[in-house]
This record gives sequence, structure tokens and C-alpha cells, in this order.
Amino acid sequence: MPEPLSQRPLFKRLVLVGIGLIGSSVARIAMEKREIAAEVVATARTQATLDRVMQLGIADRAELDPGRAVEGADCVMLCAPVGAYAALAEAIAPHLAPGCIVTDVGSTKQSVIRDVGPLIPAGVHFVPAHPVAGTEYSGPDAGFATLFQGRWCLLTPPPGTDDAAVEAITELWRRCGSMVETMEPAHHDRVLAIVSHLPHLIAFTICNTAEGLEGESRQEVLKFSASGFRDFTRIAASDPVMWRDIFLNNREALLEMLARFMEDAQAMARAVRWGDPGFIEDSIERGRVIRQSLIELKQV
Amino acid sequence: MPEPLSQRPLFKRLVLVGIGLIGSSVARIAMEKREIAAEVVATARTQATLDRVMQLGIADRAELDPGRAVEGADCVMLCAPVGAYAALAEAIAPHLAPGCIVTDVGSTKQSVIRDVGPLIPAGVHFVPAHPVAGTEYSGPDAGFATLFQGRWCLLTPPPGTDDAAVEAITELWRRCGSMVETMEPAHHDRVLAIVSHLPHLIAFTICNTAEGLEGESRQEVLKFSASGFRDFTRIAASDPVMWRDIFLNNREALLEMLARFMEDAQAMARAVRWGDPGFIEDSIERGRVIRQSLIELKQV
Repeated sequence: MPEPLSQRPLFKRLVLVGIGLIGSSVARIAMEKREIAAEVVATARTQATLDRVMQLGIADRAELDPGRAVEGADCVMLCAPVGAYAALAEAIAPHLAPGCIVTDVGSTKQSVIRDVGPLIPAGVHFVPAHPVAGTEYSGPDAGFATLFQGRWCLLTPPPGTDDAAVEAITELWRRCGSMVETMEPAHHDRVLAIVSHLPHLIAFTICNTAEGLEGESRQEVLKFSASGFRDFTRIAASDPVMWRDIFLNNREALLEMLARFMEDAQAMARAVRWGDPGFIEDSIERGRVIRQSLIELKQV
Repeated sequence: MPEPLSQRPLFKRLVLVGIGLIGSSVARIAMEKREIAAEVVATARTQATLDRVMQLGIADRAELDPGRAVEGADCVMLCAPVGAYAALAEAIAPHLAPGCIVTDVGSTKQSVIRDVGPLIPAGVHFVPAHPVAGTEYSGPDAGFATLFQGRWCLLTPPPGTDDAAVEAITELWRRCGSMVETMEPAHHDRVLAIVSHLPHLIAFTICNTAEGLEGESRQEVLKFSASGFRDFTRIAASDPVMWRDIFLNNREALLEMLARFMEDAQAMARAVRWGDPGFIEDSIERGRVIRQSLIELKQV
């Protein structure tokens, strides 16, 4: 790891486009320590959100129009659901100052490069990023300054991205407490499909399945949830629009991982139906290896 | 709720047949407070387990032969994996004293009634039970005296079961700290299929799917597990033989719930493939209702 840069602010003006859980956490860190930006500007879809942001005191200035918000910024961070990126990029592109770095926090990286990349004007840098952190809560009240502490942030700069811009975004995330790694965008999307997107899809789905049961059984799902079901529901509380966008924007990798999972589940179903104890036990044992590795890596 | 019985021991001699997480928790409670039994006898498949039990001081006496173990008992509790019940019932049946109550702690209740019921001698009572409590750990070291505190215990007595026997087992579980409810066996198996058996099957399966990925991605599953995957792995650490037996002994209900889940997952896959944002968002929203209800019921 290189020596930390001096702790003067990295940027003169950081603009957060969208200020939910991630955006408002970055805002809190930036406002508290002033090591990331001398000025923090927030823009959001609704005036109500911006009013709340100013009430919380987590930005120096709020601006409803995204184009006007980004004027004069040296760093613009997209923190909206990834499905909104194309329209946002179109709205801000004409207002971006030369030398500005555009970055983001989205959970899908190929889609961001596809949707935002072509709209970035010459002389503006583009460094896609994904802080792998979150909770099941959303909105500007949900953020907190320690969210990124000890968590990974993955950068997926397209080939030819300016080294100094990549280093600046790396330093931004280090100052948020993250460990930073660079990854190839397609590889990022595959890895996140299995560790995050598929588990969320499964969690939403089993909640849906339970919700669809007849009245009495449905009540009992709630009553006896502690016996396993409850563990699945925490992540199912996450923001629907954000997850809808992630699923639609990581389609190929998510469908591939889901197909593998469905094959494995069908094999288990078949073993249960025809009574193959050896197959079931082996499958369970193989899966336990992962859990053991997590325990050894102290990830639990 | 009726007045509690006097706190003299409920039974003269309680025999625990199998002494893993559940059995050793009951043993600890019985030995600590002496309100459940004047004498606690343990029997298990191996002498090593019984040696450990005596070392831990959680039984008055250990006996390797299950037939000899149950002699003179007024309560026998089967605490082995449900797949072992038929053979165990056959081994103990000739040795059961008249008036003895046979009960169990298995997670599947129709199978227990099918496997054990016909082997119970005349004059011996049979009260199937399921304490809905557990952790991902197993073995005699894993038990603890507060495991059942505030948790449900479901009794599924077959029609015609002696009322006094049902009341005695009810009182046993109350003295373990549980809330007791009686349920129809088939209904029990359906409810547990959705709240416990299906979540475990899914957790084992997704761990298996991840374990099957190529080397590099597999390492990254571990590295980035905090982004959702980790929540699924805790319950996947549970005992393979116990779960194998549960799956095979609740086949119909489990396969039905799995089929419903697979249909719902396929519908999500289809919406992702063909790009149906409304369907995805609605599905997520419907599932969130369950989570909201859990929060309102303070079950999280």
C-alpha cells in the first residue's frame, strides 16, 4: 500500500447524485473529516429528500437539478439505483468540467460501463467503483460513517483510464475505511452474482412463497420463523427499486448462477423424492466446506 | 395456562436416547434444577459420546445398550436423528415399563408416528413432541440450559393419547422454559417444511453451488461473503445426518414447498431474462411484507 496522501481534502467539490444508504454514508464521512472534499453537494430525485439531507446536515448544499449540481465539481459520484444511471449521465454530461472524475457505487459494473461510459465527455475521467457494503435499510437517514470500515471497494476502470483518476478514487475509498481492489468488470459481475445477487433473489423469492401460503400457515411462518426462515428475511428487507435494477443489469451472470442453483436444488429434490440418503448427505457435507472456510477466515 | 405442578421432579427416571444438542440441553436443565427428573440416564450410539457425557456431568448414569438404558424409566425421550427412530423403538420396546411415557424431539412428526407408534407396547404412552429450537452446532458439548427459553414446543399426540401423559410432557417443556402448543401432525410437517426444512435445503444447496465454482471465483465467494451469501451459510453448518433424515422423513411437504419456491424462482428468472421490471418489483414488495410482519411481531 502506498503512503497515504496528505490529509488535505482530495477534492474541491464532491457531488453525490442520489443520497440513500451509500451516498449519505459517504456524505457523513466527507462532512465529518473534511479529508475527502472541501465542499459536499447533494442532488436527489425529490426536494423532500434534499430537505432531509440539509436537516441532517450531511451536505453543504443541495441542488434539485442534477446538471446544475455537478457544475464546477472535480468529483461526481453516482449513488442512485443503477437503472437510473443512463438518464442521469445524459443530464449531467453537458455540465461536467474538464478534469472532473465521474465515479459510482453501483453493484453491477458492466452495465455502468455500457450506460455511462459513452456519455462521458472528452477530458472527463470515468472510474466505476463498487463499495461492497450495505445494510437492509435505505434512504438518507440510513447512512453512517463506519459503513465502509474494513470492507472491500472494487474498482473496475475501463482500459486506458487515467492512472491519477484511479488513484484519487482509490484514496477516496481508503479514507472511507475500505480496502480497495481492481477487478475486471465481467469478473466482478460474476462474483457478485453468486455472493450477493443470487442470495437476494432467493431471499425475496422464499419470502414471496411464504407470503403466498394460505392464511393459517402464513401466520405460523411468522410464529415459528426462528427455526431457519428468519435468517433469510433480513436481506429480503432491502430496497426493491435498487434490487430490481441490479437484477435487470446483471442479467447474464445472475441467470447463470440461478440456473446452477436450480440444477443443484432439483438434484436435491430428486434425491429426496427417490430416497437417496448418500447423495443428500454428500451435498450437505460439500456445502459445509464453504462455511468451515468462512470460519477459518474469521468472516463470520 | 393451568397452575404449575409442584416443583418436585416430574419423573423418577428420565432416559435420553441420543444426547446431541437437544438431548444434552434437556440433560443440563434436568441435572441443574432437578425439577424434571430425580435421575437422568443417557444412552448413545458410541461409548465415546457417553464418556464425554459423564465427563461433562450432564447425566447420573450412562448406558450403551438402549434396551437396558430404558429399564425402569417413567419417561424415555428419543433425541436421535429421526431416521434412527424405528430401529431404536424396536430395541427399547420390550424393555419399557408399563405407564412409561415415550416422547421425542424430532423435527418431523408424521414419520415419528409412523415409525414409532406401532412399536409402543400396550400400557405405555406415546407423546410425540418437537422443541422448535436449535443452533448450527451439534454433539453433547453443544447443549446449554437456556436453549428452549421462550421458544415453542409443539406436541402432536395421536388421537386417544392419555391426557395425563400429554400434560406431563407439556409440563416437562414448560420447566425447560418453552411455550407449548398442540398441533395436528400433518399440519406441523407442512409448517415446518416452509419455516425450517426448505430454508435449510436452500442454504445447503447454495453453499454447494458456490463450492462447485471454478477455483478463483470460489476464493472470492469467501472474500466477499459479507454481501449476502454469509447470511445463508450459518444454518448450512448444521448436522448433515440430522438434516438428511429430516428431508427424507418430511418428503411430501418439503417437495411441495420446494416446488412452490422453484415456480416462484422460475417466474423471477423469466422476468429478469425478458426484462419485466414491474413483476420483479412487485415480487420483492410482496416478500417484504413478511419481513415487516416479523419486525412488528418483534421476532427479529
